[in-house]
Amino acid sequence: MKKYAEMTKAELQAELEQVKTRYAELKALGQNLNMARGKPSKQQLDMNGPMMDILRSDSDYMCDGIDARNYGNLEGLPACRKLFAELLDVKPEQIFVGGSASLQLMYDTIAKAYTHGRVMGPKPWAKLDKVKWLCPAPGYDRHFGISESFGMEMIPVPMTPEGPDMDLVEELARDPEVKGMWCVPKYSNPDGIIYSAETIRRIASLQHAAPDFLLMWDNAYCVHEFDGDYVPFPDILKECEKYGNADMVFEFASTSKITFPGAGISVFACSENNMAYMKKLLHAQIISYDKVNQLRHVRYLKDKAGVLALMKRHAEILGPKFRCVLDNLEREIAPLGIASWQKPKGGYFVSVNTMPGIAKATWKLCKEAGLTMTGAGATFPYGKDPQDSNMRVAPSLPPIGQLEQAMEIYCASMKLAALEKLLAE
Amino acid sequence: MKKYAEMTKAELQAELEQVKTRYAELKALGQNLNMARGKPSKQQLDMNGPMMDILRSDSDYMCDGIDARNYGNLEGLPACRKLFAELLDVKPEQIFVGGSASLQLMYDTIAKAYTHGRVMGPKPWAKLDKVKWLCPAPGYDRHFGISESFGMEMIPVPMTPEGPDMDLVEELARDPEVKGMWCVPKYSNPDGIIYSAETIRRIASLQHAAPDFLLMWDNAYCVHEFDGDYVPFPDILKECEKYGNADMVFEFASTSKITFPGAGISVFACSENNMAYMKKLLHAQIISYDKVNQLRHVRYLKDKAGVLALMKRHAEILGPKFRCVLDNLEREIAPLGIASWQKPKGGYFVSVNTMPGIAKATWKLCKEAGLTMTGAGATFPYGKDPQDSNMRVAPSLPPIGQLEQAMEIYCASMKLAALEKLLAE
Repeated sequence: MKKYAEMTKAELQAELEQVKTRYAELKALGQNLNMARGKPSKQQLDMNGPMMDILRSDSDYMCDGIDARNYGNLEGLPACRKLFAELLDVKPEQIFVGGSASLQLMYDTIAKAYTHGRVMGPKPWAKLDKVKWLCPAPGYDRHFGISESFGMEMIPVPMTPEGPDMDLVEELARDPEVKGMWCVPKYSNPDGIIYSAETIRRIASLQHAAPDFLLMWDNAYCVHEFDGDYVPFPDILKECEKYGNADMVFEFASTSKITFPGAGISVFACSENNMAYMKKLLHAQIISYDKVNQLRHVRYLKDKAGVLALMKRHAEILGPKFRCVLDNLEREIAPLGIASWQKPKGGYFVSVNTMPGIAKATWKLCKEAGLTMTGAGATFPYGKDPQDSNMRVAPSLPPIGQLEQAMEIYCASMKLAALEKLLAE
Repeated sequence: MKKYAEMTKAELQAELEQVKTRYAELKALGQNLNMARGKPSKQQLDMNGPMMDILRSDSDYMCDGIDARNYGNLEGLPACRKLFAELLDVKPEQIFVGGSASLQLMYDTIAKAYTHGRVMGPKPWAKLDKVKWLCPAPGYDRHFGISESFGMEMIPVPMTPEGPDMDLVEELARDPEVKGMWCVPKYSNPDGIIYSAETIRRIASLQHAAPDFLLMWDNAYCVHEFDGDYVPFPDILKECEKYGNADMVFEFASTSKITFPGAGISVFACSENNMAYMKKLLHAQIISYDKVNQLRHVRYLKDKAGVLALMKRHAEILGPKFRCVLDNLEREIAPLGIASWQKPKGGYFVSVNTMPGIAKATWKLCKEAGLTMTGAGATFPYGKDPQDSNMRVAPSLPPIGQLEQAMEIYCASMKLAALEKLLAE
């Protein structure tokens, strides 16, 4: 097969007729498929059924002398702090356990910077005329959603195969109005990239003009390999401390994709200064998050080895789905030269960069054929992909049979969009 | 027994010797008792064990076509909204279901007024020089804690047996810097007062100079009778709507004292305008609160009748404890004329007003004899009780045997503090 870019007008026209026919056939099937969000599948949820059967008798609720059912222990059950400390390679006293959503902990960390300021001052961000924020892009739409909600000026930073473009980050951080940055350092959303050691070193040692610069380190996929063994990853708290930036960073993690997305537990990890400050502020907000659910997780997951064993079972379900996506792209799209993509070994997404100017058109064609993809542009600040190129494929939810059909629609739609654009030029 | 105020110096001195001896005996027992917080007892927690055994098989997690375990449904499970709508006599679409703490929903409602402003504008409170807030006092220390955390200027409003002093509230609300008010309308914390129909009418029809005045209606004890049958209570949303104040009010409730304090569910109820606005803001903060716990509560509590039946069982445990407190006060303190108190039929507290100037001293004597009471002053803004008189008795946690001992210490301590004060005058 020739690359589209090398085809003559007549060859493109002939290809268009073929692709149109195939697309029409697929559309005629009247499918209703969804690859929009990184939602775990029913099979993954069912796998965790035993967790719900683990607290049986009244005495089961006691842990370290604490009755998990009653008020108290703002920072979470000690046993639960210990579990996450092992997972993230930090100290238990650096862990704060939250509710079912790490997004809430992230939002609240930023909200408190606005209403109360950060531990090092100098003043609440709500008192400032402008807050600028670094957004490695493509990135996670819900991160950008938080920034947008608070009216930040989001500055996109291109992603490289090693993580964010650090030359640009270092330059931008010299602006005192730049108050922070979003990062998904391991299996980044959507690229599935693991930040390199050098990138992490440069982030941890970042010279920032804003004294209250806030590094939002969303380690959402810290143990989420679906291909191969667990990949150790440096603890960002120690890295930052090493360079005098201990108070710069908050790390986040959750069990949303370990146990249940709608009923898991979440944590943040931070320096002692930050922890003392946040506990003072959080004391006004909540008596404690759900400690029974914390205990249920501790009893079920036990320790890091227990978590990694469970993640292997998730990988057995997720691995074939990602292979299906990558195989389809390799077979159907690669020879045509109309898109490129990362080949992640963990996380929840495959990030596809089409030739410029066809992501939105591809999305629309998918939609019309019954396949909902993540909105084109969603992976960029303000939903605006300057190249109209990036598309996030989220293969976790559909059963494998449906996924094959979804990828057929996706590939046919992308070809059609590419051909129509090339022929219109 | 003569009232202390009517005793001669010599009589007071003789009484002091007796009380001192009794206090020393009690202190010598080396007790460690706690009546500081409205914590449910182990007996109450154990009673709800069956709730944790209610979700068994994979299909149990489906409700109205929604898998409670997965992402989605920001505003809560429809079945859970319906349950609380029945409890609060509002429409299901007026209910938003949160996590384990209504305090968090209250904090966030106010935090969003600071960062984003209210639905009717005019601007975020963080942009204002000053925010004043009406605090019926004695009141709930954690309400005042939220106000203090945001740097509000708290204005105490005296409580009457009908609720807050409405003449004063109406006068203060003419100040455009007064942005809101805390209320615990049924079995108020700590007085145990039910706001009268007239008080509610005057609150609902309040003329407020601030267009974005926020009525924080914490219906924490909406079904929490421990003596007698459920007392119906008007829906504040409809009341406010009647007087053109539909968007003024947020109502809050939770199952903290129905199921588990550390693992219950919470809600707010509000107008359609407020709901649309809050959902837009909350969308940036959280994907959804724990829907599995919501479903567990729905299946266990079923409906209002189910909740009221359960509350009768709580009352069987709590009723004797409150009678113990009231009997002790009646027998030991009433004849001396050194304190007065409400006799609540619901809620979690007995509010005691000692003669002026001895609450702190009484607290200290209790502490030294091994009994921790709610801090004297805690029921007032900034922890400052101008009369040094109000003490909150929280009898729910200790078993009845310990409670008898606690009340002995409490009464002896109060007598001792009163005698020392009277003899020093």
